[in-house]
Amino acid sequence: MTVSSDKTRVLTGITTTGTPHLGNYVGAIKPAIEASQDPSVQSYYFLADLHALIKCQDPKRVEQSRLEIAATWLALGLDTDNAVFYRQSDIPEIPELTWMLSCVCAKGLMNRAHAYKAAVAENEEAGNQDPDRGITMGLFGYPVLMAADILMFNANRVPVGRDQIQHIEMARDMAGRFNHLYKGQYFALPEAAVDERVEVLGGLDGRKMSKSYNNTIPLFVSEKKLLKLVRKIKTNSLEPGEPKDPDTCTLFQIYSAFAGAEEAAALRTEYANGIGWGEAKNRVFEYLNAHLREPRERYQALMEDPGHIEAVLRQGAERARAEAAPFMDRLRQAAGLGRFV
Amino acid sequence: MTVSSDKTRVLTGITTTGTPHLGNYVGAIKPAIEASQDPSVQSYYFLADLHALIKCQDPKRVEQSRLEIAATWLALGLDTDNAVFYRQSDIPEIPELTWMLSCVCAKGLMNRAHAYKAAVAENEEAGNQDPDRGITMGLFGYPVLMAADILMFNANRVPVGRDQIQHIEMARDMAGRFNHLYKGQYFALPEAAVDERVEVLGGLDGRKMSKSYNNTIPLFVSEKKLLKLVRKIKTNSLEPGEPKDPDTCTLFQIYSAFAGAEEAAALRTEYANGIGWGEAKNRVFEYLNAHLREPRERYQALMEDPGHIEAVLRQGAERARAEAAPFMDRLRQAAGLGRFV
Repeated sequence: MTVSSDKTRVLTGITTTGTPHLGNYVGAIKPAIEASQDPSVQSYYFLADLHALIKCQDPKRVEQSRLEIAATWLALGLDTDNAVFYRQSDIPEIPELTWMLSCVCAKGLMNRAHAYKAAVAENEEAGNQDPDRGITMGLFGYPVLMAADILMFNANRVPVGRDQIQHIEMARDMAGRFNHLYKGQYFALPEAAVDERVEVLGGLDGRKMSKSYNNTIPLFVSEKKLLKLVRKIKTNSLEPGEPKDPDTCTLFQIYSAFAGAEEAAALRTEYANGIGWGEAKNRVFEYLNAHLREPRERYQALMEDPGHIEAVLRQGAERARAEAAPFMDRLRQAAGLGRFV
Repeated sequence: MTVSSDKTRVLTGITTTGTPHLGNYVGAIKPAIEASQDPSVQSYYFLADLHALIKCQDPKRVEQSRLEIAATWLALGLDTDNAVFYRQSDIPEIPELTWMLSCVCAKGLMNRAHAYKAAVAENEEAGNQDPDRGITMGLFGYPVLMAADILMFNANRVPVGRDQIQHIEMARDMAGRFNHLYKGQYFALPEAAVDERVEVLGGLDGRKMSKSYNNTIPLFVSEKKLLKLVRKIKTNSLEPGEPKDPDTCTLFQIYSAFAGAEEAAALRTEYANGIGWGEAKNRVFEYLNAHLREPRERYQALMEDPGHIEAVLRQGAERARAEAAPFMDRLRQAAGLGRFV
């Protein structure tokens, strides 16, 4: 009963609440676009806009982020002929499956979800009487939606950060339980593929680059702004001529995430030789700018043509639904919700 | 922004896990069918088959129950030209809205839901270490699905039993919160309409007639079986000739739920005059049988023609979606999930 394919199915969702930054590029976008070119892989990329509603109730921000993220992926060369690229909210089968999975998902599983437990711990630390204060059912139940995202397309592999491994385990749990209860191999059990880089790209202040720390370098800012931001990257007080340690240096790390091995080795030598911070920053800026110029131009053109982005996403949704709709029919049938004839 | 209509919108869902019995008829089906004939009312009736998955993971039972319930309502004369009659699972906008409402529904609200609290209390009484043992996310979150059922069609009035009043209050809460967050009058605030009869029709053993007590008289059993069941209704040991109390008598109560006021008054007199239980039961059987004969024949014909039932429900789903789909578009737009052009 499973959707069959010889290809490994890899699925990646991008929550649409922010503007893509270098950390997203290195941690998620670049490897994903590379993976989409692997002929042995069938990739699924989606704008996780239903997930966005959990964190963001500012419609303009969600709207703008969806557009920026779509334009970013297209500008960076996502091959939408190979990969299936869609908006989550264009696939009504996903919330349908979410409900079906809710009915086979133990509440206890959600009680133990990291994100929920962290929110409860925060309330307790703040001395709130109600440990669930400010927690919505969306936040509490979102691993079920995530399971539906994955299981809807029978993804085998889900590239995630370490903090998301638990969600993949939960999706496996729901898949196994559904298969067992309804006596069939409806769902493949997905596996987490952890890319260590997801966690380590530093931001302006040296902490992980993340919109929640407000320390990001957006991918497609203007040249001028990019230079300004690179200059703001925190370094130390070593003078030109003093040797510097690339391995504890955010600037070096950002550079080497973009540069090839040889280029990184060359800059490493310059660090040892005592390159000054100003010069190092100029080098990194020049490198980034040279690599981002072309996609930035494509990005700007795309942002001025939302109709084109819409058309690409609608086409992706059609491809996704061509799989999801008949699969959902089978799942409904399995649960006793089929048609009478 | 609300769906406008001069008519009061009344919505009733029927969970599809059992076979309709006299208690359902008296408590829900009969008043609903009467209401559907009121020209000032726009009625919505739906087979709550997504809700059924919470309680029942036997696909054959869910399947059969859906068919029996649909056949029952049609056999009893539901006017599907006036009323909108559909299967919940045919309306993908409902689980979509469920997700959107999850994101505005406090988890704390669900913590206080009666059904959930009762399940926790049962676990605690049984000495289970995990108070959430055996509780799924479906059971925990079903008031959100119920809110989506109601708000999807901007129902003004929802006939419910007392135990369901809380769910309507929760739906009001979510509606108000969505309206507030997204700055519009998207949803009307629904009101509960409590019909006291829902709670009181007795079953074979004198307790409330309910499939969970296994004390029901199905509506459309054969004549022979109906007689057998009526004879099983618990009475007392008073002999013929002794006066009997109609007001504490399940048999009398069942009769008067079906009979007119005059007929009930006549039987009341016979009770005072000491009618024997055997004769009283025969009278009640004759009355029920005479009233059920015609719809039973229609029911049997319908059960033999599932294709017809399917067509009726699909037509109902089309009418329901003609409202739900554009409304959902507006809601998506409100939350920042609209189309780019």
